[in-house]
Amino acid sequence: MAKKQKKFRPKARLPRGFVDRSPADIRATDRMVAKIRDVYERYGFDPVETPFLEYTDGLGKFLPDTDRPNAGVFSLRDDDEQWMSLRYDLTAPLARHVAQNINTITMPYRTYRQGWVFRNEKPGPGRFRQFMQFDADIVGAPGVAADAEMAMMMADTMEALGIARGDYVIRVNNRKVLDGVLEAIGVEDDAQKLTILRAIDKLDKFGIEGVKLLLGEGRRDESGDFTEGAGLASIQIDMLVKLIGDKTKPYNRQEFLDHLDYVFKSSDLASEGAAEIGDLINKVQECGYSPIQVIADPSCVRGLEYYTGMVYEAELTFDVTNEKGVKVRFGSVGGGGRYDGLVQRFTGQPVPATGFSIGVSRLLTALKNLGKLDDTEMPGPVVVCVMDRDQVGAYQKMVAELRAAGIRAEMYQGNPKNLGKQLQYADRRNSPAAIIQGSDERERGVVQIKDLHEGKKAAAAIADNATWKSERPGQFEVSRDQLVQAVSGLPAVGKWLDRAP
Amino acid sequence: MAKKQKKFRPKARLPRGFVDRSPADIRATDRMVAKIRDVYERYGFDPVETPFLEYTDGLGKFLPDTDRPNAGVFSLRDDDEQWMSLRYDLTAPLARHVAQNINTITMPYRTYRQGWVFRNEKPGPGRFRQFMQFDADIVGAPGVAADAEMAMMMADTMEALGIARGDYVIRVNNRKVLDGVLEAIGVEDDAQKLTILRAIDKLDKFGIEGVKLLLGEGRRDESGDFTEGAGLASIQIDMLVKLIGDKTKPYNRQEFLDHLDYVFKSSDLASEGAAEIGDLINKVQECGYSPIQVIADPSCVRGLEYYTGMVYEAELTFDVTNEKGVKVRFGSVGGGGRYDGLVQRFTGQPVPATGFSIGVSRLLTALKNLGKLDDTEMPGPVVVCVMDRDQVGAYQKMVAELRAAGIRAEMYQGNPKNLGKQLQYADRRNSPAAIIQGSDERERGVVQIKDLHEGKKAAAAIADNATWKSERPGQFEVSRDQLVQAVSGLPAVGKWLDRAP
Repeated sequence: MAKKQKKFRPKARLPRGFVDRSPADIRATDRMVAKIRDVYERYGFDPVETPFLEYTDGLGKFLPDTDRPNAGVFSLRDDDEQWMSLRYDLTAPLARHVAQNINTITMPYRTYRQGWVFRNEKPGPGRFRQFMQFDADIVGAPGVAADAEMAMMMADTMEALGIARGDYVIRVNNRKVLDGVLEAIGVEDDAQKLTILRAIDKLDKFGIEGVKLLLGEGRRDESGDFTEGAGLASIQIDMLVKLIGDKTKPYNRQEFLDHLDYVFKSSDLASEGAAEIGDLINKVQECGYSPIQVIADPSCVRGLEYYTGMVYEAELTFDVTNEKGVKVRFGSVGGGGRYDGLVQRFTGQPVPATGFSIGVSRLLTALKNLGKLDDTEMPGPVVVCVMDRDQVGAYQKMVAELRAAGIRAEMYQGNPKNLGKQLQYADRRNSPAAIIQGSDERERGVVQIKDLHEGKKAAAAIADNATWKSERPGQFEVSRDQLVQAVSGLPAVGKWLDRAP
Repeated sequence: MAKKQKKFRPKARLPRGFVDRSPADIRATDRMVAKIRDVYERYGFDPVETPFLEYTDGLGKFLPDTDRPNAGVFSLRDDDEQWMSLRYDLTAPLARHVAQNINTITMPYRTYRQGWVFRNEKPGPGRFRQFMQFDADIVGAPGVAADAEMAMMMADTMEALGIARGDYVIRVNNRKVLDGVLEAIGVEDDAQKLTILRAIDKLDKFGIEGVKLLLGEGRRDESGDFTEGAGLASIQIDMLVKLIGDKTKPYNRQEFLDHLDYVFKSSDLASEGAAEIGDLINKVQECGYSPIQVIADPSCVRGLEYYTGMVYEAELTFDVTNEKGVKVRFGSVGGGGRYDGLVQRFTGQPVPATGFSIGVSRLLTALKNLGKLDDTEMPGPVVVCVMDRDQVGAYQKMVAELRAAGIRAEMYQGNPKNLGKQLQYADRRNSPAAIIQGSDERERGVVQIKDLHEGKKAAAAIADNATWKSERPGQFEVSRDQLVQAVSGLPAVGKWLDRAP
């Protein structure tokens, strides 16, 4: 790192994969997140948050895209030489939090948290190194009923955001099924199991032929990069392909068992998993959720290593055009599952837990695609123009009166060269009105109010420049002491005042 | 870093200076922050946010408590060997953002941002390595009017939070005054200037005698640690002590000039600074702010190096008892000033800017001390108890109905050993009611509703255990199809339904 030098001029730039956030993005995210939070609160969850840095050994190594130690996460050494990392998800820190406070936490522990997570990976289109997740978890709930509740909460969240049935589906599966099948076809090595898991998780991305390559010798992508495969024999691959099945088909319990039976005559573990899936499907249907909303899907596996039972994924099923101009299914906006071993990593005692995570930015993009994004523009402030520099106190007083009435307002704080520049500023800020008081108006005890929204509409209807100048559409004069009342009455301002602050 | 090992069991612990956040803390912070945001929005500010990691050279070295390179911040190397740091404040990243987008940003650029910042320092009581700031800045506003607006916005923020006049004061000063005085007494070295600045900034902490030591040879604290002083001669120290003056005295413009004149016969730079202070005080008084709210104070300097003109600080003036049992003034909860050179670091062109930062956790502590904290407890969920395991679907259906009516509700998801354990859970969650349906109630088509809030009150009035058991205070029976209506009618639930979600 450079020492401080005289005249050193750094380049203003962001590290790769990081972005600044605009007002529109922040406000749309806040509104979406508030709706999600409302669902979680109704389900009885409370907010609990952990810090951004954790000891690296506590976070563990569960990232799907790397097996190199320390890759995938941002890590640094503390003064005492211990390694710390920026959290890469919100689940690993929750497990640490529960383990640390296991004697004081009331179980079942129903909590949610929204926050930024960090991945030290190659950024790409729509792929950032800092992104927001919104998680909900139940710790201390051993039964399928808790998993069923998570699946229903995901469905309710999609609907609270205005996503129609048919545009989303919650897919559920159980790791025990895959584990049982792998056992039956003779796969025992943990690393190989993980490669298989991640191959199947790529079904949406690469299609069934791509998955077959990843299960076998490996797959070379368009750029020539080669990804090593799991090295399975073709008979093993065939069986897994049969298991994955037709992902568009909704399963009930019996159909799922039949399907499994069609693939394998017997696997106790796989049967146990299938029974849990059936149990979950029955439970959500008893609560009125249809197979359009929640389906069993043997191809849903999730890429993370730590799941131990039920897994679930919220998939958006409508098509979008990707960066290559190809129509693709929008795909996953979040998922999760049961991770009974994560707290045990610390305590040695198994602690049942189930939870899911929503990718906030991806969901925001989905809502934009569906035309469901609440991106109502906040009206800008009423701009009080500076006509005479020695009257700044008087202008500022107008602003103070407007603000006291709850109206967004400001005095123009730039260099007040001319009125045109100030009105241009007001226009760019989407201001509902500009207030003008020159010496003439001051002497007469009045102000000019320029209704910028109405003015724009009127201007569109006037063809001729001379008419424009003489008529000054949308501009009117009121006495100084009527300022607040007159501005409150403007349509754009009134709408803002009616909104919650 | 340890490689992944079988049976490796990490200890569940947080790095020093980091904490987990409870629901009560998160909710109280969110409510306070919403009130602050409302003030900023009314002043015409829009949210703009930057990411957590920035290139280290872009952040610069402006932290008050260290001059070692890389100390004070958390830094790590990117894949391409460039150093990145976690932001230590929200001002340096804003300057980078403005410099990077200078050609597209509409000036004046009025923005706010709330976020976590990180300091790699020794943690202590109430001193964390991750904490939240809430900043507002105007970039592209050269005049004192913009600084005046910031001072007024700080005052309005304090009042919006319910802090009474007299319990807070916004202190304003101007760096040009101190710079002019230092010039006049022959201090030219930048490092020495910085040491003097930080010595004066310690007035609240160490008193005037402590500041004198720090201006001179240095100061040894109670633990024996020695802090090197600025090495000024005693006549220089006397002059600075006179300048700092009586910090409790409110100044208007003329008094301030008189005071300065009393210390020095002439300094053009100091006079210019004093004139700006006078201008600001006049402006805020024209808008109706009294010297109880905004005062000139020559001892207010702020510890950061980058200020170039006006500085301001929000001080809470009531006393609290510190961790040593000593009564002390609560002190600063935020501050800021004009930093016309920060964007220039990147672009080479001066860009006027003024802004301030609120320490969110400190302000929250202050509100708690004043009894002004909005820490209304969120009622817990209505808990539907599991009496028969094979009826889980029916219980879950009750929950779904309650939720559909907007009521927080959940089925007990732990191991349903006995009813007592489930009621204890409901009690710990601050639930307004528990719903009980055993086989008897199911046959009769009814449910028992246990009003836990009313039940507690009634229980307090009953001395005798037998009466308790026979009367079962707060418990009543309704037909199954009246469940939602009956629960909505409970006082604690009704209050929650009346609140915004």
